[in-house]
Amino acid sequence: MSDTAKPIKSAKPRSRSSIGAVRSPQSTEAILDAATAILSEKGYKAFTMDALVERAGSSKPTIYRWWRSKGALLRDVYERAAVTFVTSPDTGDLEQDLIDHLRSLWVWWRSSSAGETLRSVFIEIQLDIEAIEEFRTAFLPRRERTLRKIFARAVSRGEIIDGPAIDAAVTMLTGTSWLHLVTANLDNLEDIDRSVALVVRGLRVG
Amino acid sequence: MSDTAKPIKSAKPRSRSSIGAVRSPQSTEAILDAATAILSEKGYKAFTMDALVERAGSSKPTIYRWWRSKGALLRDVYERAAVTFVTSPDTGDLEQDLIDHLRSLWVWWRSSSAGETLRSVFIEIQLDIEAIEEFRTAFLPRRERTLRKIFARAVSRGEIIDGPAIDAAVTMLTGTSWLHLVTANLDNLEDIDRSVALVVRGLRVG
Repeated sequence: MSDTAKPIKSAKPRSRSSIGAVRSPQSTEAILDAATAILSEKGYKAFTMDALVERAGSSKPTIYRWWRSKGALLRDVYERAAVTFVTSPDTGDLEQDLIDHLRSLWVWWRSSSAGETLRSVFIEIQLDIEAIEEFRTAFLPRRERTLRKIFARAVSRGEIIDGPAIDAAVTMLTGTSWLHLVTANLDNLEDIDRSVALVVRGLRVG
Repeated sequence: MSDTAKPIKSAKPRSRSSIGAVRSPQSTEAILDAATAILSEKGYKAFTMDALVERAGSSKPTIYRWWRSKGALLRDVYERAAVTFVTSPDTGDLEQDLIDHLRSLWVWWRSSSAGETLRSVFIEIQLDIEAIEEFRTAFLPRRERTLRKIFARAVSRGEIIDGPAIDAAVTMLTGTSWLHLVTANLDNLEDIDRSVALVVRGLRVG
């Protein structure tokens, strides 16, 4: 939650030069920085367009030209942050790799503004059916990429057999993680171990 | 969010007879009926307190005296509807029972206003940490009761062994179902079969 995030010094208002039809990288970064700072310091409730405009020294027309909705902007905030979150556990054991990755993910969510940002994405996309489609068909697969890599390595080692059960495993581990996120239950890291153990047992037999 | 909701004509002030500290069952039902109708006809975006007051012929003070938030009210709307949704599959086979129950649940969500209502509960509780706590510690266990009964019967038949893996199974099937709900993906009923098959295989080995 936001109240556990470290405060970040408020950005000074910036003057902006006029922009063309193409996104200015500087302005884009300034807007994403401002959004991150608001989510980090005050959480989703304080994340209004007015607050964002003020913090970023931007304007609503500019923001809405670059992002079709608050949800789209928040998604970019999350994905920019996710670039800094890289785990590639490769212990040679599927169960241990999954546990390592998911524990790191949960800790990252709750120790940075990333968890609050992803929660905010969930809320915002619920208001826009197009955003839900985009979320399911593009954002979700990108978010599941590390899990899929871990399973693929287990397949190539001969630890498990490839097949649709792996899709089910990815969806269940993702669904469980997100359920813990939206119910403010990320402290129960041992839930990861139990879920992973069950899934891996099922895959080894299957 | 509310600022994207369609404008709704302001409610005419109505005179109300004085009420006591105890909820009037008639008024409670009228408010829940009105909430159900709004969600069913127009969805969460149109579900504003003004719309509810007008539809129910009630007042904001009354509503807020009985429910501490929109989230709490929506939770009651969902749970009242859930009384009419009862499945008790008992085929003698854990996998089939789980599939039957979850398929019925998904179909109920998408064919009634129940899915929209639960989606709305998710959104609203995210704005209120107390509501999240209540959701996790009370609402969620109530929602998982049917799944737990199905697993308990399998334990008593000797099909699986009791233990913490069952908790993991319940959480994963719930998390997966809710992920499908919030990503508008309830048509893919075969995802249920794959998830259930994997979980049951894991439990039978464990």
